[in-house]
Amino acid sequence: MSKVTVVGSGNWGSVAAKLIASNTLRLKNFNDEVRMWVFEETLPGGEKLTEVINQTNENVKYLPGIKLGKNVIADPNLENAVKDADMLVFVSPHQFMEGICKLLVGKIKDGAEGISLIKGMEVKKEGPCMISTLISNQLGINCSVLMGANIANEIAMEKFSEATVGYSQHKEVAERWVQLFTTPYFIVTAVNDVEGVELCGTLKNIVAIAAGFVDGLEMGNNTKAAIMRLGLKEMMAFSKLLFPSVKDSTFFESCGVADLITTCMGGRNRKVAEAYARNGGKRSFEELEEELLKGQKLQGVLTAKEVYEVLSHHGWLEMFPLFSSVNLISQGRLPPSAIVEHSDNKSRCLYTRKFGNSSL
Amino acid sequence: MSKVTVVGSGNWGSVAAKLIASNTLRLKNFNDEVRMWVFEETLPGGEKLTEVINQTNENVKYLPGIKLGKNVIADPNLENAVKDADMLVFVSPHQFMEGICKLLVGKIKDGAEGISLIKGMEVKKEGPCMISTLISNQLGINCSVLMGANIANEIAMEKFSEATVGYSQHKEVAERWVQLFTTPYFIVTAVNDVEGVELCGTLKNIVAIAAGFVDGLEMGNNTKAAIMRLGLKEMMAFSKLLFPSVKDSTFFESCGVADLITTCMGGRNRKVAEAYARNGGKRSFEELEEELLKGQKLQGVLTAKEVYEVLSHHGWLEMFPLFSSVNLISQGRLPPSAIVEHSDNKSRCLYTRKFGNSSL
Repeated sequence: MSKVTVVGSGNWGSVAAKLIASNTLRLKNFNDEVRMWVFEETLPGGEKLTEVINQTNENVKYLPGIKLGKNVIADPNLENAVKDADMLVFVSPHQFMEGICKLLVGKIKDGAEGISLIKGMEVKKEGPCMISTLISNQLGINCSVLMGANIANEIAMEKFSEATVGYSQHKEVAERWVQLFTTPYFIVTAVNDVEGVELCGTLKNIVAIAAGFVDGLEMGNNTKAAIMRLGLKEMMAFSKLLFPSVKDSTFFESCGVADLITTCMGGRNRKVAEAYARNGGKRSFEELEEELLKGQKLQGVLTAKEVYEVLSHHGWLEMFPLFSSVNLISQGRLPPSAIVEHSDNKSRCLYTRKFGNSSL
Repeated sequence: MSKVTVVGSGNWGSVAAKLIASNTLRLKNFNDEVRMWVFEETLPGGEKLTEVINQTNENVKYLPGIKLGKNVIADPNLENAVKDADMLVFVSPHQFMEGICKLLVGKIKDGAEGISLIKGMEVKKEGPCMISTLISNQLGINCSVLMGANIANEIAMEKFSEATVGYSQHKEVAERWVQLFTTPYFIVTAVNDVEGVELCGTLKNIVAIAAGFVDGLEMGNNTKAAIMRLGLKEMMAFSKLLFPSVKDSTFFESCGVADLITTCMGGRNRKVAEAYARNGGKRSFEELEEELLKGQKLQGVLTAKEVYEVLSHHGWLEMFPLFSSVNLISQGRLPPSAIVEHSDNKSRCLYTRKFGNSSL
């Protein structure tokens, strides 16, 4: 019987614990108890967050109003939370993962399996720092990923949704993750393409910025759909240049086209980019981010900048007119309207020649 | 020098004539003049529509306010309009095509090439009646198609957009069509998959109905994205069952994912389906169609019914839970909420087994 621990207890982490807890109760091959590591906080009333979660069965701070299941046990002690776990679900903010991994070295069970639900890797000049790779390398365990069109609050309310597990080696492992997460309203599919799935979760944020520009310029649904499609193709092309093993089919999964749609329709990247274009680029992203997101952080602008450096480093800029434009616009080096003017003949030709129909 | 005739002069036909006319003037291998066959009408003031178009350069009835180009000549005489044409652009309402073809038999130039911009073929039990095939068979000419995320009025205003040419045999022919339609704001790509491209233009309307149900039920972006993705996969699967030559990559083109996005965001199918779900299925589609569309017709409900018959005939219903549900819901045999309940284990399993990742 596998024991499961969720490392992280924010909004998405709490929803993940809820999904998992409903399955460990139901399925014989999992231990009922789901341990959830909680970064301890003292609530305004003076109580400890973990104590309140364990008493009320709710994460009152990050997912109020939703019962997690009585078999979810909040644990403020990271080492204790992971020590017996056979399956580790990583779902903390990405900037904390390096620190968490360091604390976990040597503390986890032999043969444990990991899965990362964390979107938003860094993309360095040498290539992207996949969070699954970080976990895998630091802890010496196999690490899959789960991504998709997953707005945590909607899943918490049990609205129908889907997700994709990306795995690298063992199909049986992927099937166990699928079992652990699937519910009647949350359908999970596994694909043998961990890099493709994880890259989708990061690159989509660049496209969402582009979609936001189109919204701000009031260019209509046609243009927005065209920009989303071009973005999807650049996501595929970029992923395949970095990892030739990446599969086109991954982009038809929830982690690909569906997450892209959700992110370009709602989502904070789109929202701030829309405001940026409405202001004609005269107010900076930092300023709008502060005003509109109240402390939450934008991923897309940073990712666009990082990806631009990779493209520039390899001489690939002309093949990625959309990714390039998003960066140049958000840095104030091009006006927002440039998002649809990147299609000058030269780059378009190069682009089509390289990634047009023949590449598919 | 090729002569071009546009057969049809509605909203989309007029925009097509405008796009084409800007290119025949610019490119040496086309005759400047673009002839546009207009079904003659007498306007409220007593003038003939063709005369007004030729005097004002505007289709005052179907695309007011937009100059078509002085080289567009409206012609009320079908036979005269087509007799010298080397390239025939078909863009009349689909229910008129059979009649038009009959009138054209023996009247067109040897070696002429056709292209259909008409969305909405019928799907009969024996399979779909492709409009390109109808034209091709009736007139004995080769016929390509052009489809995409193309809201006519947005393209008329020169907002950035894309389209896909589907061709069956000669790449050079497709390239000529691409040349004829491409402008700096309208980017056209050719794919060797006429059936795939044409089927996209019809099947997307079923998915738009599903998306409308999700909107009416207020299920959020997550669910909507999931439904659109499942719809896209059923579009692929259905097309490939009917025509094994259909390519997955076609669904990444403008005719596929981009047109699907536009249609599921705006669009009349989505709109009426939303109203249907909001009313809990208590008011019929016919009633809502009349109230909301004021004379325009819904494609999606009819297509869903036709496709259902094909699925039923072949015993494929369980493999297409979304397509099936759309029909059963719009016929009042299931409640709108069934759109997300089609994912019961049995059909989902079958579906995944048959069209999951392995098929891609």
